[in-house]
Amino acid sequence: MKNSPSSKTKAQIWVVENHNFVTRSDQLATEEPLEIRINFPKQTIAVTMRTPGADFDLAAGFLYSEGVIKNREDIAKISYCVDPEIDGEQRQNIVNITLKSELTPNLKTLERHFFTTSACGVCGTASIDSLQIKGFSAIPLGLEVSPEVIYSLPAKLSTAQSLFKSTGGLHAAGLFNAQGELLKLREDVGRHNALDKLIGSEFLAGQLPLNNLIVMVSGRSSFEILQKCITVGLPIVCAVSAPSSLAVEIAKEFNITLVGFLRGRKFNIYSGVERIK
Amino acid sequence: MKNSPSSKTKAQIWVVENHNFVTRSDQLATEEPLEIRINFPKQTIAVTMRTPGADFDLAAGFLYSEGVIKNREDIAKISYCVDPEIDGEQRQNIVNITLKSELTPNLKTLERHFFTTSACGVCGTASIDSLQIKGFSAIPLGLEVSPEVIYSLPAKLSTAQSLFKSTGGLHAAGLFNAQGELLKLREDVGRHNALDKLIGSEFLAGQLPLNNLIVMVSGRSSFEILQKCITVGLPIVCAVSAPSSLAVEIAKEFNITLVGFLRGRKFNIYSGVERIK
Repeated sequence: MKNSPSSKTKAQIWVVENHNFVTRSDQLATEEPLEIRINFPKQTIAVTMRTPGADFDLAAGFLYSEGVIKNREDIAKISYCVDPEIDGEQRQNIVNITLKSELTPNLKTLERHFFTTSACGVCGTASIDSLQIKGFSAIPLGLEVSPEVIYSLPAKLSTAQSLFKSTGGLHAAGLFNAQGELLKLREDVGRHNALDKLIGSEFLAGQLPLNNLIVMVSGRSSFEILQKCITVGLPIVCAVSAPSSLAVEIAKEFNITLVGFLRGRKFNIYSGVERIK
Repeated sequence: MKNSPSSKTKAQIWVVENHNFVTRSDQLATEEPLEIRINFPKQTIAVTMRTPGADFDLAAGFLYSEGVIKNREDIAKISYCVDPEIDGEQRQNIVNITLKSELTPNLKTLERHFFTTSACGVCGTASIDSLQIKGFSAIPLGLEVSPEVIYSLPAKLSTAQSLFKSTGGLHAAGLFNAQGELLKLREDVGRHNALDKLIGSEFLAGQLPLNNLIVMVSGRSSFEILQKCITVGLPIVCAVSAPSSLAVEIAKEFNITLVGFLRGRKFNIYSGVERIK
């Protein structure tokens, strides 16, 4: 299974049904580590478990949505690792992002993910405050959509999820316009990664902010999902399942329309009802 | 919503069905940050977004399953924060673990989660290798269960999931004996947290290793889920949904029976078929 990364991995499995054991071949969603490095100061920014594919989008999206960089011009180059000391097949699991030489990346924003080696007597408050999003404002009103558009999203997302169909094991994030047309889809074993791939793709294409678009994610909506959506100005966030309390709290604070339990011709609105007409 | 942490949070929502908008009150799964601190060297080990409840189990389980400590005797005391500089209601979002004074915790194992500030020319290989589990051996054979026991687990898990019933938004990890009796259940907005709460509870009760028990998790099985199960010697790991490629790879390496797509009277076995008779 350790050859060059592909988004799918073959496996031989046993299917048990009513005490019958049958062996057959199957496809699994590939999970491999991706190490994201920046060049200056030269360091590893993150190691995330991801499904190979759209790795440059993922790396750029992570740096943007976590607040390390602000503009696509901040990135001079993105490449896989070419370090001769690293085993060939592992190089595809390392993405190097070369930042413009004059840029000082904002690594402070990453601290909440990470182990702080310094003594920190009063950092309880600081760590918790650092979870609040800084430097982004409430999403403007303007986009309005009908319930029909919202109802239509899950079927469009699942129809387009090619990897999910063969593996049954992937999260998705889909970007839709106000008419409910699917513009872009990204899949990953990790919920946050699927969204970071989507955000990174739009970021690298110079399409931010996304003030007139809708995002739909498989699974639940959490604080981190909402936080990432805020960084790209998404006004409507839909999820198949339930939001957490903090997802609702932050959606209200940033005037996001948050939809959950979107199934069939029914959904819940947790915040920002005025955009659904 | 910011009063003292409870596992459920009330919200007023809109339910949209066939163009009818109806407002009603609802319950959300609470999501709040938990900062885990150790005393010596005094530092923050992690900030995780969790559902309040079983916080001491979560903190202890995280330290154990991530390899920072090895024995329950390593912990002298666990308490919520009493720092007067920290706002009263936030103190419940900080758990202090006092380690035995002579102990040097193994913080090296946490590095893969974290931002490394040092220059790291050859750390690609190192970071990726550090994802391999060190110091644990393959789980011994011995436990054998019938398909009937496996079929029965999802219903028992969901019947016991009280928080899920009221919020629809929580992951669960349940511990079962060889007869399929549910011994312990933990819920959380985070999949890993639900498992860490379960592991922490058994760890603090002196019940490790869990060589004769079965664990069932909601959702999918990933590398990290398997890694945590290996640290407590769980021989059978079941999930409602699909495993990732790396979950299967590590299950094979450590001789774990990995079951997925467990629904009704059907499931898949990805590794360790010999324990299902």
